[in-house]
Amino acid sequence: MAKIRAGVLGATGAVGQRFIEQLWDHPWFELTSLAASERSAGKKYREAARWRLEHELPSEVAEMTVVNVDPKEVEADVVFSALPADEAKKVEADFAKAGFAVASNASAYRAEPDVPLMIPECNADHLGLVEVQQKKRGWDGYIVTNPNCTTIMFALTLKPLMPMDIQRVIVASMQAVSGAGYEGVPSMAILGNIIPFISGEEEKVEREAQKVLGTFDGDRIVDAPFAVSASCHRVPVMDGHTEAIWAEMATDPTPEEVREAFLSFNPGLGDLPTEPKRPIIVRDEPDRPQPRLDRNAGKGMAVSVGRIREGIRYIVMGHNTVRGAAGASVLNAEILSKKGML
Amino acid sequence: MAKIRAGVLGATGAVGQRFIEQLWDHPWFELTSLAASERSAGKKYREAARWRLEHELPSEVAEMTVVNVDPKEVEADVVFSALPADEAKKVEADFAKAGFAVASNASAYRAEPDVPLMIPECNADHLGLVEVQQKKRGWDGYIVTNPNCTTIMFALTLKPLMPMDIQRVIVASMQAVSGAGYEGVPSMAILGNIIPFISGEEEKVEREAQKVLGTFDGDRIVDAPFAVSASCHRVPVMDGHTEAIWAEMATDPTPEEVREAFLSFNPGLGDLPTEPKRPIIVRDEPDRPQPRLDRNAGKGMAVSVGRIREGIRYIVMGHNTVRGAAGASVLNAEILSKKGML
Amino acid sequence: MAKIRAGVLGATGAVGQRFIEQLWDHPWFELTSLAASERSAGKKYREAARWRLEHELPSEVAEMTVVNVDPKEVEADVVFSALPADEAKKVEADFAKAGFAVASNASAYRAEPDVPLMIPECNADHLGLVEVQQKKRGWDGYIVTNPNCTTIMFALTLKPLMPMDIQRVIVASMQAVSGAGYEGVPSMAILGNIIPFISGEEEKVEREAQKVLGTFDGDRIVDAPFAVSASCHRVPVMDGHTEAIWAEMATDPTPEEVREAFLSFNPGLGDLPTEPKRPIIVRDEPDRPQPRLDRNAGKGMAVSVGRIREGIRYIVMGHNTVRGAAGASVLNAEILSKKGML
Amino acid sequence: MAKIRAGVLGATGAVGQRFIEQLWDHPWFELTSLAASERSAGKKYREAARWRLEHELPSEVAEMTVVNVDPKEVEADVVFSALPADEAKKVEADFAKAGFAVASNASAYRAEPDVPLMIPECNADHLGLVEVQQKKRGWDGYIVTNPNCTTIMFALTLKPLMPMDIQRVIVASMQAVSGAGYEGVPSMAILGNIIPFISGEEEKVEREAQKVLGTFDGDRIVDAPFAVSASCHRVPVMDGHTEAIWAEMATDPTPEEVREAFLSFNPGLGDLPTEPKRPIIVRDEPDRPQPRLDRNAGKGMAVSVGRIREGIRYIVMGHNTVRGAAGASVLNAEILSKKGML
Repeated sequence: MAKIRAGVLGATGAVGQRFIEQLWDHPWFELTSLAASERSAGKKYREAARWRLEHELPSEVAEMTVVNVDPKEVEADVVFSALPADEAKKVEADFAKAGFAVASNASAYRAEPDVPLMIPECNADHLGLVEVQQKKRGWDGYIVTNPNCTTIMFALTLKPLMPMDIQRVIVASMQAVSGAGYEGVPSMAILGNIIPFISGEEEKVEREAQKVLGTFDGDRIVDAPFAVSASCHRVPVMDGHTEAIWAEMATDPTPEEVREAFLSFNPGLGDLPTEPKRPIIVRDEPDRPQPRLDRNAGKGMAVSVGRIREGIRYIVMGHNTVRGAAGASVLNAEILSKKGML
Repeated sequence: MAKIRAGVLGATGAVGQRFIEQLWDHPWFELTSLAASERSAGKKYREAARWRLEHELPSEVAEMTVVNVDPKEVEADVVFSALPADEAKKVEADFAKAGFAVASNASAYRAEPDVPLMIPECNADHLGLVEVQQKKRGWDGYIVTNPNCTTIMFALTLKPLMPMDIQRVIVASMQAVSGAGYEGVPSMAILGNIIPFISGEEEKVEREAQKVLGTFDGDRIVDAPFAVSASCHRVPVMDGHTEAIWAEMATDPTPEEVREAFLSFNPGLGDLPTEPKRPIIVRDEPDRPQPRLDRNAGKGMAVSVGRIREGIRYIVMGHNTVRGAAGASVLNAEILSKKGML
Repeated sequence: MAKIRAGVLGATGAVGQRFIEQLWDHPWFELTSLAASERSAGKKYREAARWRLEHELPSEVAEMTVVNVDPKEVEADVVFSALPADEAKKVEADFAKAGFAVASNASAYRAEPDVPLMIPECNADHLGLVEVQQKKRGWDGYIVTNPNCTTIMFALTLKPLMPMDIQRVIVASMQAVSGAGYEGVPSMAILGNIIPFISGEEEKVEREAQKVLGTFDGDRIVDAPFAVSASCHRVPVMDGHTEAIWAEMATDPTPEEVREAFLSFNPGLGDLPTEPKRPIIVRDEPDRPQPRLDRNAGKGMAVSVGRIREGIRYIVMGHNTVRGAAGASVLNAEILSKKGML
Repeated sequence: MAKIRAGVLGATGAVGQRFIEQLWDHPWFELTSLAASERSAGKKYREAARWRLEHELPSEVAEMTVVNVDPKEVEADVVFSALPADEAKKVEADFAKAGFAVASNASAYRAEPDVPLMIPECNADHLGLVEVQQKKRGWDGYIVTNPNCTTIMFALTLKPLMPMDIQRVIVASMQAVSGAGYEGVPSMAILGNIIPFISGEEEKVEREAQKVLGTFDGDRIVDAPFAVSASCHRVPVMDGHTEAIWAEMATDPTPEEVREAFLSFNPGLGDLPTEPKRPIIVRDEPDRPQPRLDRNAGKGMAVSVGRIREGIRYIVMGHNTVRGAAGASVLNAEILSKKGML
């Protein structure tokens, strides 16, 4: 079977590099196009980007020529967008209009009522919105988005708790610096320090989970009926967002019942290549999960929970640039492929 | 006026060193006795202790001879206890029985109904318990305690909110490593990492604030009628505990009303030497307070709040080994002195 | 072919855990015995050890029963020693006497004239000492050691420079905390700090390289005739020792000649399982090697060099608990196996 | 006595802020002018700059109006330059021509033969160059520079060793992130990592000490006749450069003789306000100096040495943005003032 041609928009930045890492030996996708700003276009990728990841860049990727972020220059069936939100608004529409499937990690379209905000283990049926989107906008292609990195971690854990009738969720996050991009957090700001503020983050966290866990009624998403209150903090950790969660539920479950719900959660997507064996790993040690030890669980695609206590309180931790960004978009594209939408 | 003679119990450890730093040039107290374990007793302090603080140990302290933790060997009017909880139980009672005023940072007696759990700005009137304590136990001296470091930060901020009828408090802490003592947190555990667990901490945090903010009815403390739910996390920060607080109040105040309450909080203890000009400093910048920038505010005795948002949510940060430990006990002793109890 | 039975002495500590990680799916060795102190003996390994590595402990290892560090209780053809130096002196001799091959990471026997101090890429022929050792001591088994972690990194890079007639070597090390064991460096000592002292380290560094690069004359090692001067520093890095090296050579080579010597270094051990494709990787970027990016090169068994400048000065960096400890002993055992000595 | 009017050029950046901190309550100087780029000019300082230091910005400074970096807009007798090297070349000349004394931390003029490169404790007599400079260039004012931060630390320690006939100096530095400016080192680059490269640093370190320790012959400086070889590394430390030094001396002194030379070093500048009581502090503990404990010695103006060993090897550590930058220029201006040159 021929591989699906994949492009990356914004290929030189931190999330763009994670996309390339996820895609360079992907069994279904073939990296055919790397697009970046004018400054980079025309250069070899190795000249255009300063590679920052531990895994050595394969030479076949290093030698690819970067193209402009322009539908006419990109050859691909699906494009992965690591663009900043302001650019993404116009560019992703251009690509969708031109017939591309756009799997976007940008926030630009997440709140649009006709654009799926996807975590495949939670709401694969929201893909029904694609038809609504294409009809409404007259696009040949379409846009599918994934939530903000902080949202993904706890939203995934709320899915198996939905039958317990969630009323309210409180999230205190301790977020890794990689979430802000390579130049995002100066070392003088964060060494031995906490910054109790991440611009725009709490707003995203407070509105995205309800859409992800909402119900598709054939035409639109009816938001899940709980409120989220967030406090987001930057910590001196390289990768891995840790979140302390309070989930108030009408059925007042015990910690053991919540643990069982996590353990028995089996979304059964059907062997997508980057789907972890278990999307939620339960750690029973008293001091887990921890970013350093648990962020690469399930190749960075599983989230780990622990310390499930009365309240209900628990900790969730996941890799913010894999499960929380590039890996999330790739998993979205895999479910698109499986459903024959690419 | 002659200075009050002060001793330190457990003088060689991390909190003991902070006690010495608080006391060596104190205007009211004179450091007369340093007590530590048998291993140290009989040695010069500079031989017994490995000094870990930035401020150079004055030579007059360095040359003091360490004595045993024994009321017969300690010459002082007030002793400051930096003992571990298990030792403190017996030893502090011995000292109180022998007529010493004991200002303790240990947790051993905090929950005892006849022992004040003091933050002078919150509950100086709880000192009335001392008489109850002496009568009940037949002691010539007495014990006064201060809360756990994490409790002190947010309890202080709850005091001015009490008129707003607090129903429930949620605390997510990001705690500095110095809270665990010098050998407490291995670097391999915490470098670039978060440990989402601190043994016994959440239990303390969940029960101490209600006593501090309770009412003394002449005989006992009636706990303040709110619940506290905590999740405590260790972060790679040297000094300064940061806490994200959600405070639900029946009167549903606006963030601006809460800010005003913080700003107008003036406990007026009357110029105690280590009392900060303002116990609560309000930071209006979007990204403050931060441990590195704010922990030494008010010489480490003020707490800083910021990001007061709907919910009510806010951030509080304070120096855990000054305001949260040694400085707290010293301030307790100062109020004792002012009230003529030393 | 039946696998060679391997035991680990000191299996619960930091280096012991790295040994287990190196051995649990090794193609030639089979983990048959885990030995630790009396406190651990008799317990399942998962109960005796607190597993600290990112790779999840396989359940077949977790369920192994720990035995005492006693030749009578250990079933193995080769034992890997992660014992502290003081214990190692007696215990390793006991095992060698009892017929075991001992591949030791401890410093106890490194300086003994009849014990090989091995880096297989440098001095595989020093294994001739084994016969000398057995004859002299009357042992059925024998001990083979590897150098200190800091020595291994630069000694490996000196091997290809030996023809240039090395006169003097200066080493300034920046060493990761994992080299001191899990409890070795308190976070309060090292967070945002440098400790310019590591007990005993400079002495080891200054005497080991000359033996490794010395000549076996059939009976004993004639030390290589250069002097080493070291200054060793602890830095807040988890894994990976970085070393700034000045190597003065009589032939006064250019940086380019040194680079060529590194690049063409091919010790040709013959496909040992953990032997990296290239033991020395040359990084030509201006700011490499770096611990975070390069420590896992060659699965942690390659060292990376960069910034080769006039002087001759260069940087070398390697994984201190893999190439510098457990992996070093395992590679030693592999060459023993290849030479039919197991 | 009226205070000397002082301006800061480049007042909003990291070094500019340290200048302000050094000057706001200086006994001899009065902060009269804050100059920065066009973007800032015309704004209040508190609006133009994001204050990053722990000491709260005094309101009288916060309310000052920033002016352009233009001699016509700056009112001052002496200006302190925190400009980047490329800007400094032209701007400092403009100010010197217009009659200002310029105390510069920039590298632009350090190597000019007629510009003093000053460490007052080392070479106050080099101020004789000012007359040469003014005559040669026809300036009413003049420029005096201080060395690079890394140079200052070890050059200061070499001064008392000069009688021992220094032949060669090797420097391996471990430099704090604050040396690169607030945005200079991304946290993703340095958290838990070492970067073995600082652009242009080794070149500066290798040529500046010889000039500082050279001899003024009435007309020019004759460089001190030793060679310096440096390897510079960035480490995850906020403030404080640590340097491992090898100093080869013809007289082959013992470590004890070197220690005595450091201890008896008394440059006797005569009570300049920021002059530390001892410019070189000798630490006899085995593991000092350390940045966290020693950087603020002498209010950040002393350097601390330790671990003096055969070789001669030792460690020197000092505060890079105080002694190594802003404080160095201020001390230069103090000696100018004392000599009646302001």
